[in-house]
Amino acid sequence: MGTTIRIGIAGYGNLGRGVQSAIAKNPDMELVGVYTRRDPATLSLPGGASAFHMDELVKHTNDIDVLILCGGSKSDLPEQTPALAALFNTVDSFDTHAKIPEHFAAVDAPATTAGKTALISAGWDPGMFSINRVYGEALLPDGETYTFWGRGLSQGHSDAVRRVPGVAAGVQYTIPSTEAIAKVRAGDRPTLSTREKHVRECFVVLEDGADAEVVKTAIVTMEHYFDQYETTVNFIDAATLASEHSSMPHGGFVFRSGNTSDSHAQVIEYSLTLQSNPEFTSSVLVAYARAVHKMNQAGQIGAKTVFDVAPGLLSPKSPEQLRAEML
Amino acid sequence: MGTTIRIGIAGYGNLGRGVQSAIAKNPDMELVGVYTRRDPATLSLPGGASAFHMDELVKHTNDIDVLILCGGSKSDLPEQTPALAALFNTVDSFDTHAKIPEHFAAVDAPATTAGKTALISAGWDPGMFSINRVYGEALLPDGETYTFWGRGLSQGHSDAVRRVPGVAAGVQYTIPSTEAIAKVRAGDRPTLSTREKHVRECFVVLEDGADAEVVKTAIVTMEHYFDQYETTVNFIDAATLASEHSSMPHGGFVFRSGNTSDSHAQVIEYSLTLQSNPEFTSSVLVAYARAVHKMNQAGQIGAKTVFDVAPGLLSPKSPEQLRAEML
Repeated sequence: MGTTIRIGIAGYGNLGRGVQSAIAKNPDMELVGVYTRRDPATLSLPGGASAFHMDELVKHTNDIDVLILCGGSKSDLPEQTPALAALFNTVDSFDTHAKIPEHFAAVDAPATTAGKTALISAGWDPGMFSINRVYGEALLPDGETYTFWGRGLSQGHSDAVRRVPGVAAGVQYTIPSTEAIAKVRAGDRPTLSTREKHVRECFVVLEDGADAEVVKTAIVTMEHYFDQYETTVNFIDAATLASEHSSMPHGGFVFRSGNTSDSHAQVIEYSLTLQSNPEFTSSVLVAYARAVHKMNQAGQIGAKTVFDVAPGLLSPKSPEQLRAEML
Repeated sequence: MGTTIRIGIAGYGNLGRGVQSAIAKNPDMELVGVYTRRDPATLSLPGGASAFHMDELVKHTNDIDVLILCGGSKSDLPEQTPALAALFNTVDSFDTHAKIPEHFAAVDAPATTAGKTALISAGWDPGMFSINRVYGEALLPDGETYTFWGRGLSQGHSDAVRRVPGVAAGVQYTIPSTEAIAKVRAGDRPTLSTREKHVRECFVVLEDGADAEVVKTAIVTMEHYFDQYETTVNFIDAATLASEHSSMPHGGFVFRSGNTSDSHAQVIEYSLTLQSNPEFTSSVLVAYARAVHKMNQAGQIGAKTVFDVAPGLLSPKSPEQLRAEML
C-alpha cells in the first residue's frame, strides 16, 4: 500500500470532529493537523493530534495531501475553498444548492491554475442523494424521482422555533410522511404537495410564565417554516430536552420509480438512517479525500463534484481487488 | 446535443428485447441493428428495426458507436466479448462472479490494442449492487455489508425443480427473510447463516399420476439447491402457472451498517423492486453504453467495470446541467 494519505482539517466544529473520527477508521489515512481561526492552544484534540492557526496552512503545503474544509456554507466556504484550492487538494461540503454553479466556477479557476483537485459539495445531500438521483434518472428515464428527508433534526427549523417569544429552548424534527413513502415504494407515482411529503415535530421548553397555547399557535402558523406543514408541538422540561434531544439524527430516502416498457414498472430506493448527521457527512468527506488524492495523482485537476468520481476511487482497495472481491 | 449514439444489439433473447425497449426510452440513442446467430428473417422486430446475421457485424464497424452484448455468461460472452471488443466499444452483463478477473483480462487486451472501451459485468448484481457494496464499505469502513436477493424468480432453481421426476412444470422464487432484513435495517449486525437469509418458494405442476409427497420431498431435500433453506412447495395447475407465474420479477437489498464513532451507528440501504429482471438489467446496460461512448471519446480505453465509471457519465445531461439541477 505504500505511504498513508496525509489529511488536514480546516475548521473544528461538529464536522471537523467527525472528520477526525473518520480518519481513525481508515488505516490508509493520517491526520496531519487541525487548523482553526481560534487560538490553537484552546483546542483539546483527542489522540495527540496537533492544532495550528489557520494562517499557518500556507507553511504546510508540502505536508498535506488533501485538506478537508469543515466550515459553513454561508460565509466560510465561499471564501475558503477558492483561496485554499490554490494551495491544496481540497474537499468541501458546500450545500447551498442554488449557488453550486457559482461556487464551482470560483473554485475551478484557482485549482486548475495550481494543478490541484478540488471536490465541492460532498456529503449526503448534496452528495450520496445526488448520485442516487442521477443513477435513478439514467437507469429509468421514463419515471419520477422522490426525495424525502428525515427523521432528522433540522438546524434551520430549530432556530426558527427558538426565536418564538416564550420559547426558552427547543428542537425541530423533520419527518417524512409514512403514507407518502408507502405509496412511492409500492410503485405508485403520486403527485405530492409539500404538505403531503413531510410533517414537523417540535419539542419546546417554555420560558417561565409563557402561555403554551400562544407559543404553539406562533409556531404552527409561522410562514414558510411551518404553515405549509402538519406540525406538532410537544412541551417538555429542560432536563428532558438535554437527555433526549441532544444528538443529531438524520437521514432520508431517494426513490426512482419508472417504467422500462408499457408492461413493467421498477422501483429503486436508497435510504440513510443516521444516528449522527455530522459524523456521516464527515465520513463521506474522508472517503472523497481518498478519491481526490488518486485523481490528482492521475492528473485530473480542477473543481469536481461527486458526479465526476468513479465509485472505485473511494475505496482503499485496488481495482484488481475490487473486481475480485466486490463485483 | 449533436448526433445520437448508435447502438447495436448482439443476441436477441430476453435481454436483447429489453435493450430494444430501453433504447426507445432514451431519445439520445438510436438502434442500428439487431445481430443474431439465427436466420435474421425469422426475427420479428418491433418498430421497424433491422435484423442481421451475427457474421455481418464485421461489416458494420463504422455504423455502431457501442455494441451491447446480450448473450449468456456461460458460453456466449467468454467468446464474444474478447472477439467483439477488438472491433467495437462494448457493454456486457457477464455475471459469473468467480470468473470476472479472467474475463476482464481476456477483454482488456484486445480492447486496448484496438483503442476500444469495453465495459464488462454491468447490470444489477454484478452492477448496481456491487457499486453500493463499494460505496457502503468506503463510507462506513467499520461495519458489515449484507446482500439479500428477491423476491425473485431464480432461473437456476426453477430448472432444478423441473428436473425432479413427476414435475411437469414449475418455478422457484427466492425470498429474503423479513425477519433478517428487519434486524439489519434496525442497525443490529447479526451473523446470518444461509438458511436465515432467504427462504425458497416453489410452484409446481405435477405430471399425471405423480405423487405430490414424493415430489415435495425430492425438492426440499435436494442438496445445495434446497436442503439448506426453508422451502415451501405449492402444487398448482398448468393454467395458474401460465397466468400467475410467467413474468420475471426480482430485486433485493444491499445494506451497509457501521459505526462512525463509538457512540454513533449509521445504516445505508439500497433496494430494487423489479417487475422485470431482464428489462431492468437491459436498462442498466443502455445507460452504461452512453458512459462507454463518452469514455471512449475521452480516450479511456480497455476493459472497464462499473467501479470505473463516474455517475455523471451515465446521464444524457451535461456536467453543467447536472451540477445545476441534480446536485
